[in-house]
Amino acid sequence: MFEKEYDVIVVGGGHAGAEAAAAAANMGSKTLLVTMNLQTIGQMSCNPAMGGIAKGQIVREIDALGGYSGIVTDKSAIQFKMLNKSKGPAMWSPRAQNDRMRFAEEWRLMLENTPNCDFYQEMVNGLLVENGKVCGVKTSLGIEVRGKAVVLTNGTFLNGLIHIGEKQFGGGRAGEKAATGITEQLLDFGFESGRMKTGTPPRVDGRSLDYSKMILQPGDAIPEKFSYTKTKTLKTQRDCHMTHTSALVHDLLKEGFDRSPMFNGRIKSIGPRYCPSIEDKINRFADKDSHQLFVEPEGWNTVEVYVNGFSTSLPEDVQFKALRSVVGFENVKFFRPGYAIEYDYFPPTQLKHTLETKLVENLYFAGQINGTTGYEEAASQGLMAGINAHLKLNKKEDFILKRDEAYIGVLIDDLITKGTEEPYRMFTSRAEYRTLLRQDNADLRLTPKGYEIGLAGKERLKRMEEKQEKSNAFIKFFEKTSVLPEDINPILESVDSALVKQSDKMVKAFSRPKVTMNHMLQLKSVSAFVEENSLDREVLEQTEVQVKYSGYIAKEKNNADKLHRLEDVKIPENFDYSKLKSLSYEAREKLEAIRPVTIAQASRISGVSPSDISVLLVFMGR
Amino acid sequence: MFEKEYDVIVVGGGHAGAEAAAAAANMGSKTLLVTMNLQTIGQMSCNPAMGGIAKGQIVREIDALGGYSGIVTDKSAIQFKMLNKSKGPAMWSPRAQNDRMRFAEEWRLMLENTPNCDFYQEMVNGLLVENGKVCGVKTSLGIEVRGKAVVLTNGTFLNGLIHIGEKQFGGGRAGEKAATGITEQLLDFGFESGRMKTGTPPRVDGRSLDYSKMILQPGDAIPEKFSYTKTKTLKTQRDCHMTHTSALVHDLLKEGFDRSPMFNGRIKSIGPRYCPSIEDKINRFADKDSHQLFVEPEGWNTVEVYVNGFSTSLPEDVQFKALRSVVGFENVKFFRPGYAIEYDYFPPTQLKHTLETKLVENLYFAGQINGTTGYEEAASQGLMAGINAHLKLNKKEDFILKRDEAYIGVLIDDLITKGTEEPYRMFTSRAEYRTLLRQDNADLRLTPKGYEIGLAGKERLKRMEEKQEKSNAFIKFFEKTSVLPEDINPILESVDSALVKQSDKMVKAFSRPKVTMNHMLQLKSVSAFVEENSLDREVLEQTEVQVKYSGYIAKEKNNADKLHRLEDVKIPENFDYSKLKSLSYEAREKLEAIRPVTIAQASRISGVSPSDISVLLVFMGR
Repeated sequence: MFEKEYDVIVVGGGHAGAEAAAAAANMGSKTLLVTMNLQTIGQMSCNPAMGGIAKGQIVREIDALGGYSGIVTDKSAIQFKMLNKSKGPAMWSPRAQNDRMRFAEEWRLMLENTPNCDFYQEMVNGLLVENGKVCGVKTSLGIEVRGKAVVLTNGTFLNGLIHIGEKQFGGGRAGEKAATGITEQLLDFGFESGRMKTGTPPRVDGRSLDYSKMILQPGDAIPEKFSYTKTKTLKTQRDCHMTHTSALVHDLLKEGFDRSPMFNGRIKSIGPRYCPSIEDKINRFADKDSHQLFVEPEGWNTVEVYVNGFSTSLPEDVQFKALRSVVGFENVKFFRPGYAIEYDYFPPTQLKHTLETKLVENLYFAGQINGTTGYEEAASQGLMAGINAHLKLNKKEDFILKRDEAYIGVLIDDLITKGTEEPYRMFTSRAEYRTLLRQDNADLRLTPKGYEIGLAGKERLKRMEEKQEKSNAFIKFFEKTSVLPEDINPILESVDSALVKQSDKMVKAFSRPKVTMNHMLQLKSVSAFVEENSLDREVLEQTEVQVKYSGYIAKEKNNADKLHRLEDVKIPENFDYSKLKSLSYEAREKLEAIRPVTIAQASRISGVSPSDISVLLVFMGR
Repeated sequence: MFEKEYDVIVVGGGHAGAEAAAAAANMGSKTLLVTMNLQTIGQMSCNPAMGGIAKGQIVREIDALGGYSGIVTDKSAIQFKMLNKSKGPAMWSPRAQNDRMRFAEEWRLMLENTPNCDFYQEMVNGLLVENGKVCGVKTSLGIEVRGKAVVLTNGTFLNGLIHIGEKQFGGGRAGEKAATGITEQLLDFGFESGRMKTGTPPRVDGRSLDYSKMILQPGDAIPEKFSYTKTKTLKTQRDCHMTHTSALVHDLLKEGFDRSPMFNGRIKSIGPRYCPSIEDKINRFADKDSHQLFVEPEGWNTVEVYVNGFSTSLPEDVQFKALRSVVGFENVKFFRPGYAIEYDYFPPTQLKHTLETKLVENLYFAGQINGTTGYEEAASQGLMAGINAHLKLNKKEDFILKRDEAYIGVLIDDLITKGTEEPYRMFTSRAEYRTLLRQDNADLRLTPKGYEIGLAGKERLKRMEEKQEKSNAFIKFFEKTSVLPEDINPILESVDSALVKQSDKMVKAFSRPKVTMNHMLQLKSVSAFVEENSLDREVLEQTEVQVKYSGYIAKEKNNADKLHRLEDVKIPENFDYSKLKSLSYEAREKLEAIRPVTIAQASRISGVSPSDISVLLVFMGR
């Protein structure tokens, strides 16, 4: 009924599964995406938004490598914001609100238009494994589909259990069935599994809200976009709104705490620390009597609204009563209550850097199954799993991004090195080289790599090279061109910067704090150069960042290079740590469990001390 | 958590539920639509098409009354055809192919833009009933929502059981949960329930088909549309294709017959006679070694394809092997196999003409729960249930359409008078006055009624009145205006009709067979009249039909009027048939079970003979 044997079978059609299937298929693998429901491919299960701090950078990285998330986001966006624009460029983070229906539709159409990508609707409830190697999947109808590699992206579906107040019932998402069988089989293979928890707020009827009482949250006046390809920026946008909880709202919520599965012990697993439920916030921050709520439209036309910040598994009557006390929500009507969901995950220390499992060859995990939270985290893992599955089948080198190359590198290295006991979310603070990992240069960092492995297309590479050449030329222009005091001083004066007395290279003034590209463009020679060379917004941004932050960037590059020397010291795959008697007991245990690939990775394992690293370094021949 | 008390609660968001909610809300009832999944409102569960023979007329009737199905169909159509255009106008039947995703989205948006219509996502698993009167519903979370009337439109979800080959599993549709609780409760109330069966074909990947080997099935060159409102006709259309099964295909299918739930006794319930599975067709028409298959695209952009005519519950490997032997399907890839589904229905003789149940006051049933099949049948019942629920709550007269007024009248009268033991589908042959019940005059027949009950808007009425006035004037023009032999004879000659020797009224020539409006428009005075009065396509069509078929129409009207006299003879609600000793035993039994409202209805009950009717007529005082 199927290809005799697929190259890659992807189980699940969410952000991780969709990217995995797209990547493997685009690289040339005969790929099958199996999902319980073909109509929910690319479904945004939680908030209708992509990106945000650190997450926006990840979407840009996915796009730079040739993934689809950025394009899909641009095509379905209803609002765009560049967050943290007042801070340094390492902090700039793109974020979009999306039309939930359109997002899923665009994903489906993108995948349908991807050669080599087949689809099949059914629940997968088992893996075919022979001699420690995966060789396909088994569906609930008992069909066996052969595949050389399998990527599991089960999201919250593995033994999913939904909680609302004192009620609980099986389900992968509201209204959808849970998936069974896979966890049980993996445990038999020797995998370790755990439970995690996540939650979602109520969805409400926008017609029942009084927006006049809320604070308007419009998109950027000049919206940018995610993809480095030729997607369009938004011409019109939909507004979001903000409101707040109050002491009264908190008191009303507290009335339900004795019936809360979070507090009465029914939910034992840990939820996302940085995306807590409203009851969790009240509990943990008892001194705060107000929390922000973001009121997000679900699409261009629908009246459905997402109440960001009000995730909850309290009884539905408690949710309702409390939300009715929020300013603007006095007459709110529910479309559906919020809920929590518990699901199985597999501690990601059981994975290699390629996201292949250590126990079963050619089996890859991506997304929430690895203990992460977030669309972007999931999508990037799916992309990397799809890429590496394809590369391994074709006997090519693993594709591993280093921590100074991409947030994706940080994410995966953190996961497999440290594991995670709570849903892992990306932050800029997790990246030690965040000045290098900016949203403006993801293409410069990654598109050549994406092209090299055969994922990013030639057109992408050309666009990136053009951007690089143009911004390099523009930087050189600033470095070489002099400017007269009478030309530059009005600008310096306008930003309260000391005036100059003689001509100097433009780069000097441009490097000063508060002097921006917009200021420089006031100089006739600069604007003439821009026009002559038809430099676009992206080139201007890139040039500005590189001129103004060159010091920081150079310093971090230097630090990264130093560490690379440790990255270059490989540890043999089956290295016998028991030989090294001078390792601490803890270090030996952790090293044996994690089996780091390089000394640098070993150094990041908690419990492995600098002296343990010295022991390793000595042994490895330095 | 909800309105203290809704007027009308609609359970289910398919064609029946969506129309019921729209009608009740538009008439002014505070309405709540409860569905297991808000994202599947208006979902086309089976083929991506609306209308067809008799069914197209129903959609036109729904539209004329102020329902939404016609508008939603027009907005999401990808192809339009007027079927049977070569036959008389009673047979003309509009049919559209639809974009499945768009259809559901348009329904959802239409409902969201309907004041008084609230939404809630959860499974309803019980009714609140007090003193034999429904007063709300209970959800799976245990929430009780009060409502004065409840419309059940559960489709195939009540204890739905999906069959594929030897496998069976609970589900309301592929990938969706079944609904439980309601049937069990209704049985406790004394309802009788039964099981029915329906099925759906595999969905396949259009990229794997060879269309060059199939027969092109384009839409009409000049596509019309469903709604009498200002929706747009299609500018571009998507083609369908046709292919055929063969003896080889049948042989391959037969190989699976021993594993077929249809033939091994696992499925006991009856499926739709006129929409049989392919195995059923092979079995019943053993002498035919070929059946038509229509290859229908699922939307504007998707590659998913619906294989109309290949509905099956054979094992998936048998489906696949056989389909691969169909011309054009040699390399077909499955998106999902076909399947059969068994579900609970309630014999509709338990209903009044308003679709209210006889056993529980203010409880209405609409759609497959009444044993019907088809989107259009379901939608029209939903509309009528919604209307009547509203009217009853407002102490207004029931809204019942007679058999000579609408297919909807035929449908409901058939259901509640005769019941049905197999999925009931509408045909033109079921209507004894089909010359009156045309797709071209549904607005003239029904919009004044829809306006009177407060559902059809003023704008609709105005459009209909204008059409009526203009076509009346145009008819009068043909009746009054004479035409010279030298003007009319070329036309008569062109259709091989006898020439005339002297001037005569235009209507004479126009009434002749083969002379069409297009011919008449060749006359200068006619085309001048059309231009002066800016008559549109609909007026021309209406005029043509009324001129050319006036004889037939008048005759049927006359017959209908005669029968109306029987319709006017009411039978008292609690009439004691045992008093009438001369009734046959069978008639008495049936009459007591069905409790017809009029002598006419009594006459349509099988087992009630003309002599029984005479007995009744005598007693009722004629």
